[in-house]
Formats: sequence, structure tokens, C-alpha cells
Amino acid sequence: MKNQETLVALDALTRRLEEFSSARDWEQFHSPKNLVMALTAEVGELNEVFQWLSEEGSKQLKSDPAALAHAEEEVSDVLMYLVRLIDVLGIDINRAVQRKLTINEEKYPADKVRGSSAKYNS
Amino acid sequence: MKNQETLVALDALTRRLEEFSSARDWEQFHSPKNLVMALTAEVGELNEVFQWLSEEGSKQLKSDPAALAHAEEEVSDVLMYLVRLIDVLGIDINRAVQRKLTINEEKYPADKVRGSSAKYNS
Amino acid sequence: MKNQETLVALDALTRRLEEFSSARDWEQFHSPKNLVMALTAEVGELNEVFQWLSEEGSKQLKSDPAALAHAEEEVSDVLMYLVRLIDVLGIDINRAVQRKLTINEEKYPADKVRGSSAKYNS
Amino acid sequence: MKNQETLVALDALTRRLEEFSSARDWEQFHSPKNLVMALTAEVGELNEVFQWLSEEGSKQLKSDPAALAHAEEEVSDVLMYLVRLIDVLGIDINRAVQRKLTINEEKYPADKVRGSSAKYNS
Repeated sequence: MKNQETLVALDALTRRLEEFSSARDWEQFHSPKNLVMALTAEVGELNEVFQWLSEEGSKQLKSDPAALAHAEEEVSDVLMYLVRLIDVLGIDINRAVQRKLTINEEKYPADKVRGSSAKYNS
Repeated sequence: MKNQETLVALDALTRRLEEFSSARDWEQFHSPKNLVMALTAEVGELNEVFQWLSEEGSKQLKSDPAALAHAEEEVSDVLMYLVRLIDVLGIDINRAVQRKLTINEEKYPADKVRGSSAKYNS
Repeated sequence: MKNQETLVALDALTRRLEEFSSARDWEQFHSPKNLVMALTAEVGELNEVFQWLSEEGSKQLKSDPAALAHAEEEVSDVLMYLVRLIDVLGIDINRAVQRKLTINEEKYPADKVRGSSAKYNS
Repeated sequence: MKNQETLVALDALTRRLEEFSSARDWEQFHSPKNLVMALTAEVGELNEVFQWLSEEGSKQLKSDPAALAHAEEEVSDVLMYLVRLIDVLGIDINRAVQRKLTINEEKYPADKVRGSSAKYNS
């Protein structure tokens, strides 16, 4: 059954980040509210990497090792704060993602929205 | 060896999102640049959930099923665009996260930064 | 009449930023899309200033000259990219803000929403 | 003298927003930390407007009255939370912007950076 499929496995990283925070006594700073802001700050850095690139340039970034390494670092930062947030909120992310996929599949029927970004935001 | 440990497994979700985009002919919109903006828009919605909550209120959110469901939906949206971005950039996220964890462990030695957020941003 | 009142005067800054961009031949990078990303990157830096502060700590920031100077710099960066965006989009910001104020006054009647953030997001 | 020039005049809007908040007893929610998150949420909505547009499409947005009206609304929301934040932080924004302009002029000498976004982020 689809609902029992594992789409996302973040447990090992979750534990590593718990240990990292605990060893530094940083759990006290990791309220969900603060983690959302920290995540936002990292997303800001990701925007900085892409802000002056054309769309085509953004596709070519993967051929520039230094630029890609920078993007990888920012993407990792975003993922790590997201995983930390999921952890402190006690979210079962696998179930949450399954549910959202189902919602999206119903909201955007392939035959109705094909090739159009118009309905995408509504 | 630590570097071969799997900390993050996102492959199944990556494939589901590829199929979802492909069935709708939406890959044309999914340049890295555009995906960063879409990710940012979802992070904005996550901020909206937490903006007027106190830190304590943000910790209590998990006891409010409706609010938690809302947060779960936004967190899932953020994760899905992040996974899509990782995919189109061709990032080996497991390796990238391992590398960032190593950097962070060296940058923030537990015995130097314990209990302080002061050095955290520098 | 209220609609003719000047609530916001950004013309002088708009011109200064036009000159600054023009002298560096940077208008080519300043598409609305790129400016939104640059604005987002600066908002990320603003989040970084506040991410580990409690709400009370954020109110006390004004008594810490170094921290306030940092916040001032980030707030200025956000404002400057916003003004640049308003300029390239050709927005009459005074009229746009007046209109939004009217919408908000109708959407949130003082006697219905007093003291509550509950309706705030809807 | 340049330092006494008024580049930004936001006082009238500042007062309007103070009255608006006060009439609703909403100052209690308007800590700097919360306002940064509310600002971020609005910046997220601005990203949503531009996320699937090409750069060229983002320049053409001004010819589409409905899309422009939407962008105007989001830009106004961003500006209003920014003005509110400037107010509660007690920032003299005119002086702060002058200072940042001076910093930028020294950091990016026109003859060194002309036509290049490369040094832009450093």
C-alpha cells in the first residue's frame, strides 16, 4: 500500500542533529519559532546564490564545481534546519508528505493542468 | 565509515516528484532558480504559521491538532520543493550533508560554544 | 482628502539607487524577478539577526548599539531592494499603500478583531 | 550636505500603522521578532507572484493590470511590515540608509565592478 511506502528517511540525520545540539546545549534555542527563522536565514543564503543568475545560468550551475559546492552547502543547511524543525514539532514527515502528495494529485489533475503554470498558485 | 553511512534517504520521494512533474509537463518550470523561489514562497507560509506565536506557543503547537496539521502541510511543501531542487541540481545530498556536518563540528567545538548562541552566527 | 495625502516619499532614494545601478551598469541584472530574490536574501540576513533572540530580547535590541547597527544595516538593505523593485515595476507606491490600507481597514474592523491575532491570517 | 538630505520619508505611514495597530490592540503582537516573521511571510507571497515567470516575463508584468495589482498588493504588505519594524526598533531610517549607501559606494567602486555581478555578493 502506498501509505506504508517509505518516501523519506530522515531518522539518522535527525539523531545526528539531536546529538550535535545536545553536546552544545543548544536545544534551549531550538524552539519551532526560532528554527523557522534559522531555516529562513539559510533560504536567504540560497537565494543569494541564484539571485543574479538567469534561469539558463541556474541550470548550468551544476557544471561549475565551486558554485555547485556553494549551493550544496546552502541546500544542506536548509535541510538540516528543516529536519530539526520536523523533529521538535514531532511530525511524522513520511505520513505528512504522503498526505500532501495526495492533496496535490487531487488539486492538480494531470489532464487539466498539463503544461500550464497558471492554475499552479490558485 | 561515517562517510558511507546513509543519513538521508530521499530517493523514493525524488522519483515520485519527478513523475508528478512529468505527468503535468511541469519540468519546463522547474529551473533551479524558479524552484528556489517556490521554496521561498513555502517558507513564507511556514513563517505565517508561527509569526504571532510566542516561543512557548510554538512549542505547544504540537498539542493543537488543527495547527499542527497546518504546520505539517507547510513543512511538507518546503521539503518537496527542496527535494526537487536537489534533484535538478544533481546534488548527492547524503554526501553534501555529511560534509556540512563535518564543517559544523569543526566550526563549533562543543567545549567552546556550549550554551551560547553568540558564536553561532559568526 | 486621504487619497491625496503623501504617506510614503521614496523618490529621492529611488533616484539615488538608479544612479548607483546605472554607474555600475547593473540595470541589466535588475529584473523584477532577480530583485525579488535579492530582497529575499536580505530578509534572510534580517532573520539571522533575530533568530535566536526571545521576543523580549528582540525588544531590547535597541539598547545594544552594535546589534542595533547590524539590524539597521539589514533593514536598509531590504528597503533599498524594495525601492528598486517598486521602481522597475513602475508602481505608484503611495497609491498602492493607500489602497492596501483601505482593504485592511475593511478586512479587520477594529471592534471585531481587537486584541486577537486569530483572524489576522485569514 | 548629503547627510541632511531626506532620501526617505515614511513618517506619515508610520503614524497610520501605529493608529491601525493601536485601534486593534495589536501592538502586543508587534515585537521586532514577530514583525520580521510577518515581513518574511509577505516576502514569500511576493516570491509566489514571480516564481514561475522568466526574467523577461517579470519585466512584462507591468503590462498585465491584474498581475501588477497583485504585485502591488504584496509589495505594499512588505513595505508596511518593514515600516512597522523600523518604528518599533526606533531606527532613524533616513540616517541608516545614507550610511548604507556610503558603505556600498566604497565597497563597489563603479570603475572596478562595472557590468559584473561577480563581486556583487562578496
